[in-house]
Amino acid sequence: MAVYTMVSADEIAAFIADYDVGDVVSFKGIAEGVENSNYLLSTTTSHFILTLYEKRVNADDLPFFLGLMDHLAHKGINCATPLKDKKGNVLKELCGRPAALISFLDGLSVNRPNVQNCRQLGGALAQMHLAISDFKGMRKNSLSVEGWIKLAASCEQRADQCLAGLGQTIEQEMDYLKENWPQDLPTGIIHADLFPNNVFFLKGKLSGLIDYYFACTDILAYDVAICLNAWCFEEDHSFNVTKAENLIKGYHEIRPLSADEMAALPLLCRGAALRFLLTRLYDWLNRVEGALVETLDPLEYLAMLNFHQKIKTSNQYGVDLSS
Amino acid sequence: MAVYTMVSADEIAAFIADYDVGDVVSFKGIAEGVENSNYLLSTTTSHFILTLYEKRVNADDLPFFLGLMDHLAHKGINCATPLKDKKGNVLKELCGRPAALISFLDGLSVNRPNVQNCRQLGGALAQMHLAISDFKGMRKNSLSVEGWIKLAASCEQRADQCLAGLGQTIEQEMDYLKENWPQDLPTGIIHADLFPNNVFFLKGKLSGLIDYYFACTDILAYDVAICLNAWCFEEDHSFNVTKAENLIKGYHEIRPLSADEMAALPLLCRGAALRFLLTRLYDWLNRVEGALVETLDPLEYLAMLNFHQKIKTSNQYGVDLSS
Repeated sequence: MAVYTMVSADEIAAFIADYDVGDVVSFKGIAEGVENSNYLLSTTTSHFILTLYEKRVNADDLPFFLGLMDHLAHKGINCATPLKDKKGNVLKELCGRPAALISFLDGLSVNRPNVQNCRQLGGALAQMHLAISDFKGMRKNSLSVEGWIKLAASCEQRADQCLAGLGQTIEQEMDYLKENWPQDLPTGIIHADLFPNNVFFLKGKLSGLIDYYFACTDILAYDVAICLNAWCFEEDHSFNVTKAENLIKGYHEIRPLSADEMAALPLLCRGAALRFLLTRLYDWLNRVEGALVETLDPLEYLAMLNFHQKIKTSNQYGVDLSS
Repeated sequence: MAVYTMVSADEIAAFIADYDVGDVVSFKGIAEGVENSNYLLSTTTSHFILTLYEKRVNADDLPFFLGLMDHLAHKGINCATPLKDKKGNVLKELCGRPAALISFLDGLSVNRPNVQNCRQLGGALAQMHLAISDFKGMRKNSLSVEGWIKLAASCEQRADQCLAGLGQTIEQEMDYLKENWPQDLPTGIIHADLFPNNVFFLKGKLSGLIDYYFACTDILAYDVAICLNAWCFEEDHSFNVTKAENLIKGYHEIRPLSADEMAALPLLCRGAALRFLLTRLYDWLNRVEGALVETLDPLEYLAMLNFHQKIKTSNQYGVDLSS
């Protein structure tokens, strides 16, 4: 959570003159997102988020991300949408960085989702998957099995600095997932990072989805698995099966999960747990003294991995869709 | 620049229910201020800043600060103003911390003030001094001569870690200021931290002053000296005498400076330079690895101190008010 690039009043005024959005009246760096610099910008006509894309985002991917957001908005999905400037451009440059002006979404993220939040999230995720289905873009998921293998290799030697035995746990899980990762499930563009901080609610109703900067082509049900991990575990790492049931049912009502997809859930949840365990472990092992970004606890995801390893059938997630 | 206390959606909704400001529609941590946690809060009726006062602010001082802001607002000064809840309270508690809901001020701060900005700043500072003159509160400046002596004592041993000879420079300057610090100049409540980031402009016109959390009772012209340092030196530490002239004239037009006040300016500027040199040096020497706050360069203020030490008469600041 930081602002990495400082933008002066003159620079922002010149930037905004390219758009048809009135004059700037306020401009504040916001503590949101760890990858980019985000500013809340108010003009005489409306409110916006101005994002400057920092080094961790590959600039070549930006047309995909911005195109996806634009596509979703046109499909009626409540999501932050990039604005076009007077010449029709959405991807611009500011202070030497790629930059985009994004619509402002009302709503607040919940840090402890309740059952109803999970139900609605499931539905919104399914709606998003359906709305994306005719989007033409493609982006390989660099954080799927191949990416995990690379990450695991770069962490394995030092993983035990984090927890004794962690290196071996990762190696064994990696071997299992390489062998068993599903090959024939429906794929499409997934959000891939739909944590509670990326979902807004207003008066108990889901009001929007943000932060599409991990979106990629992958197994659709893997997005459900990522959400099960991010939304259905309590702070003490216990699994709330009622939340899981509601998340899955909320999804299934909009985009029915096939028997194969349901059966694969435990495996997909293991993969999702390993993916965040690995990236968090990598960040933890490579944390920089004095960095502005706090490292997240890798072991939270080890606890999730251990939980899913013991799941025998997917009805243990609270739903039996075969009936 | 950081948000230190995380506030949940439920906590903020409960907090806002105490006020007559509508329902919360958005709530974002902003990267502003290093002492407190600041959130931008939008409701169905308006926009606000929600401030949670963190450890560095003495809670006993908060009624003074909030009372001062309220007083200034009632006098027609454009400043952030604390709102009263339905029971008439301005100082509240949230997440175990003192908290206040503050009006939102439009405007942008300039990081490179121009001559006109300086002229307007001088005028606004004088207006603020006049508007405060009948405010009943008092607050001793803990960062005046006595405070400098304590800070200098705690830094002197290690000051040379920052720059060879710095300890001796501080000691000599401290001796000089103890001996010569003015005793008979007009006093009142001063802002004491009116850096460019605390002053907003809209379309080239000064639109507001924020951050009164260093306000205290001290020599009024010392506030001018703090601003001369903060607004009239260029990035290469050169002194822009045109900016100084305009800042002083802008002030003088509204609240005429006496001959004694003018004559004391070089001394007051030395004091102001030493004050920020010392606090920055203290923070630099005591910087914490991994801290969310960047330490500012103490030596910027050493350069200013060196400049003012060479000033013989205050007309070297570009203004001869004796004529």
